[in-house]
Amino acid sequence: MTISIIKIGGNVIDFPEKLDEFLSILSKFPGKKILVHGGGILASKFGEKIGIIPNMVDGRRITDKETLDLVTMVYAGLINKQIVAKLQSLKQNALGLTGADGNLIRSEKRPVKTIDYGFVGDVKEVNVDLIEKLLFQDILPVICPITHDKKGQLLNTNADTIASDLATNLAKKFKVNLYFCFAKAGVLIDEHNDNTIIPMINEEIYAELKKENVIHSGMIPKLDNAFAALEKGVNFVWIGKAENLLLAAKGKLSGTTIEKQKYDLY
Amino acid sequence: MTISIIKIGGNVIDFPEKLDEFLSILSKFPGKKILVHGGGILASKFGEKIGIIPNMVDGRRITDKETLDLVTMVYAGLINKQIVAKLQSLKQNALGLTGADGNLIRSEKRPVKTIDYGFVGDVKEVNVDLIEKLLFQDILPVICPITHDKKGQLLNTNADTIASDLATNLAKKFKVNLYFCFAKAGVLIDEHNDNTIIPMINEEIYAELKKENVIHSGMIPKLDNAFAALEKGVNFVWIGKAENLLLAAKGKLSGTTIEKQKYDLY
Repeated sequence: MTISIIKIGGNVIDFPEKLDEFLSILSKFPGKKILVHGGGILASKFGEKIGIIPNMVDGRRITDKETLDLVTMVYAGLINKQIVAKLQSLKQNALGLTGADGNLIRSEKRPVKTIDYGFVGDVKEVNVDLIEKLLFQDILPVICPITHDKKGQLLNTNADTIASDLATNLAKKFKVNLYFCFAKAGVLIDEHNDNTIIPMINEEIYAELKKENVIHSGMIPKLDNAFAALEKGVNFVWIGKAENLLLAAKGKLSGTTIEKQKYDLY
Repeated sequence: MTISIIKIGGNVIDFPEKLDEFLSILSKFPGKKILVHGGGILASKFGEKIGIIPNMVDGRRITDKETLDLVTMVYAGLINKQIVAKLQSLKQNALGLTGADGNLIRSEKRPVKTIDYGFVGDVKEVNVDLIEKLLFQDILPVICPITHDKKGQLLNTNADTIASDLATNLAKKFKVNLYFCFAKAGVLIDEHNDNTIIPMINEEIYAELKKENVIHSGMIPKLDNAFAALEKGVNFVWIGKAENLLLAAKGKLSGTTIEKQKYDLY
């Protein structure tokens, strides 16, 4: 059995028409699938209304008590349930989950070193059994980036991390493909030109590209994470635009596929 | 198999210590169980902060688009997930659900007659199969009063109604007891005195009590609903204080138990 894990973020969620288009594509996406969604700008918008100013360090939100309540409301409540209801209308048996639900994802509050991230959780354990049971009931899990420490505390976790950790844990038992929907069409040679997609990257190509300084620095952590997932048994990682997801599912050229080195070529 | 459905509302949810006490009691409550929770004052509080003024008619909230988003955030997000995380810390495998999740509860937007209730849904269908599968996985479903119309629209539904409709639908297959946690100790002869509980009401006693004008008018709809649930096969309905729930589970005197007429007495 192949499981596809698809992650969307603000570049889809923040635009109602784009989200609708994506959900329609997702409903046609073949096989067993899991959706992981981030939060987008909605949390910041509601936060402003109630006087919470987003506090970001290195692109990560510092999560104080009020911010945690806010993201729990917006991610687990508003966004998650609107996505689930829409998918239900598309005859997809979606079921929304945080990491607390069914103890899906246990995390630990990040220790304070130089920065106190507040109520931010680093993933420690994924309940593969629950996901497996849901998938076998033809349920489409819709997972938002709120986890818990099993001691009663909800925690805010990065959605990319959740997608990767789900993938590597499920990869112990299943063939898993991981799709990151992205603002750009894939990994680009010229980051301002969607026509310069690198269609496939393996370890060898990646080493070359880094050596020649071709890859935009912002992509390097994403690619490093992708290779880390492959190391842990994920079949492939895809990075591209949400609207090209069906092409990707059909194995057609679209976005960038990151694969393990094919040693047999040597 | 006996299933206990327990409903809590604002008189528990609005007080953190009471909610903690209740969840600890719930974790000791024997057998298969389902928690249904309402919203309490939190939604109104957040609504005030973002400039939404609660609009109530006959004790029911009029649900415009902004209010629907608000209750989806507060009920399905904040309250539901805090309860789930707390139950997980008490070794209860809780999983939070709206009616949209797994198509648990399909409702229809209430038709406009004299009052336009807005995005309020009347329950049409309950997915007994999903509940059954979750209970057999030793999952404790935690259900909030948001439903959907299966056409992509979330709807706001009364939590008492959800508890009753779950009970009557599950009663077709299982023995179901329905517990309403209430501000008062039960159905009282003197509504200001918790020591005047009527321990048991059946149809015969109910007819007498109504004839003698003993029952406070506010209780009559609750009792009518309880008898309607019994008519549809629910084993018994209990009304009492959350803190007496364990006594009730042990069959000890506490609150008011509403039972069907025992015709064999005649």
